[in-house]
Amino acid sequence: MPTVRIAILVFEKLTALDAIGPYEVLRSVPGWEVQFVGPVKGPIRTDSGALGLNADFALDEVSEADIVLVPGGEGNRPLLRDETVLSWLRAIDAGSKWTTSVCTGSLVLAAAGLLDGLRATTHWSVLADLEPLGASPTSERVVEHLDQRIITAAGVSSGIDMALRLSELLVDDVAAQAMQLMVEYDPQPPFDAGALAKASPEVIERVIEYVALLPEGGAVEV
Amino acid sequence: MPTVRIAILVFEKLTALDAIGPYEVLRSVPGWEVQFVGPVKGPIRTDSGALGLNADFALDEVSEADIVLVPGGEGNRPLLRDETVLSWLRAIDAGSKWTTSVCTGSLVLAAAGLLDGLRATTHWSVLADLEPLGASPTSERVVEHLDQRIITAAGVSSGIDMALRLSELLVDDVAAQAMQLMVEYDPQPPFDAGALAKASPEVIERVIEYVALLPEGGAVEV
Repeated sequence: MPTVRIAILVFEKLTALDAIGPYEVLRSVPGWEVQFVGPVKGPIRTDSGALGLNADFALDEVSEADIVLVPGGEGNRPLLRDETVLSWLRAIDAGSKWTTSVCTGSLVLAAAGLLDGLRATTHWSVLADLEPLGASPTSERVVEHLDQRIITAAGVSSGIDMALRLSELLVDDVAAQAMQLMVEYDPQPPFDAGALAKASPEVIERVIEYVALLPEGGAVEV
Repeated sequence: MPTVRIAILVFEKLTALDAIGPYEVLRSVPGWEVQFVGPVKGPIRTDSGALGLNADFALDEVSEADIVLVPGGEGNRPLLRDETVLSWLRAIDAGSKWTTSVCTGSLVLAAAGLLDGLRATTHWSVLADLEPLGASPTSERVVEHLDQRIITAAGVSSGIDMALRLSELLVDDVAAQAMQLMVEYDPQPPFDAGALAKASPEVIERVIEYVALLPEGGAVEV
């Protein structure tokens, strides 16, 4: 089992599940090493403010990775103009096997110029933001570019699906299924409202109401 | 929207997704407050060693919660004999609306005497461990006892399904669907191997091989 080094970018006000879903799948392959890397090393808080995570490594401590993953969250908006982060991503991408994102993490990849002209996905609420950054938005859950070694995943929980696919690509389909069984990913949501096209107008209205009331605020445009 | 206080127990060597899946759903309801509470306050590491989380509150700083959630991970084994933790859980349970677990967290609830005679679930690999602790094991994904206000969820990722159900129970079905849409939980795993009954012998063999090689070690008996 070859060692695979995985660098997950973490920053103030990230959305935790974007990062932790894939982490939990990928860390379960023996020999695979996950590193949480941040523009600022040390303790950070997620978007809700209720959870503390740690950036164990500074950007300049991680110069190579087989997989690099950029999660979403309102906290990644400043990264779109952070040349230190964007340069780091470009350098890691040059040597990576897979450059990946979950949720609004794809906006950062696009800002780094890594999605130029490519179909890409993101959280359904900000799909339109990809186009000005040079990518071609699509509402698929996981969008792969095997030639460019780029995978983007849609909102928050989609990173779990993407990580299973990465396990398949880097080991084999048995490994991916083994990971799926280890995290007992046999989804049985009580409803079928997890995509914009599946949600009723009442549900979409409730999302808009809730997002406006959350501490991190913001508006959802549908 | 009434405030709902959610206490998630965290400890050294927990399985991160057990806690973070439900957190991400529940923290998105306006006014709901999540607190990460630990036997020891401060920084902790997850079971893989690769991720640092923070226990923001000590047990004696949190005396009430509407929802209490116990995640799994090898690190909760010592808690089965930790009377300080078990007493705290019993006290919180006495006033909680819902006492819940994900993965092997149900073993801790059982050790606290909170699952006596009740059907309960846990990670598929340790289902048999529930019985000596007084619970009646079942391999369902989410097991509810509406009268006793107890819900147990199966392995790791099942906490997301449980949290959606909690949102429904505490608000309504529109809220649960809104949460599902916010975290874009429209699962599309590339395989269908997320439950023991669905996995091939080859996949189960791979899980056994991988678990034996992981740093936290251990053996899986099937």
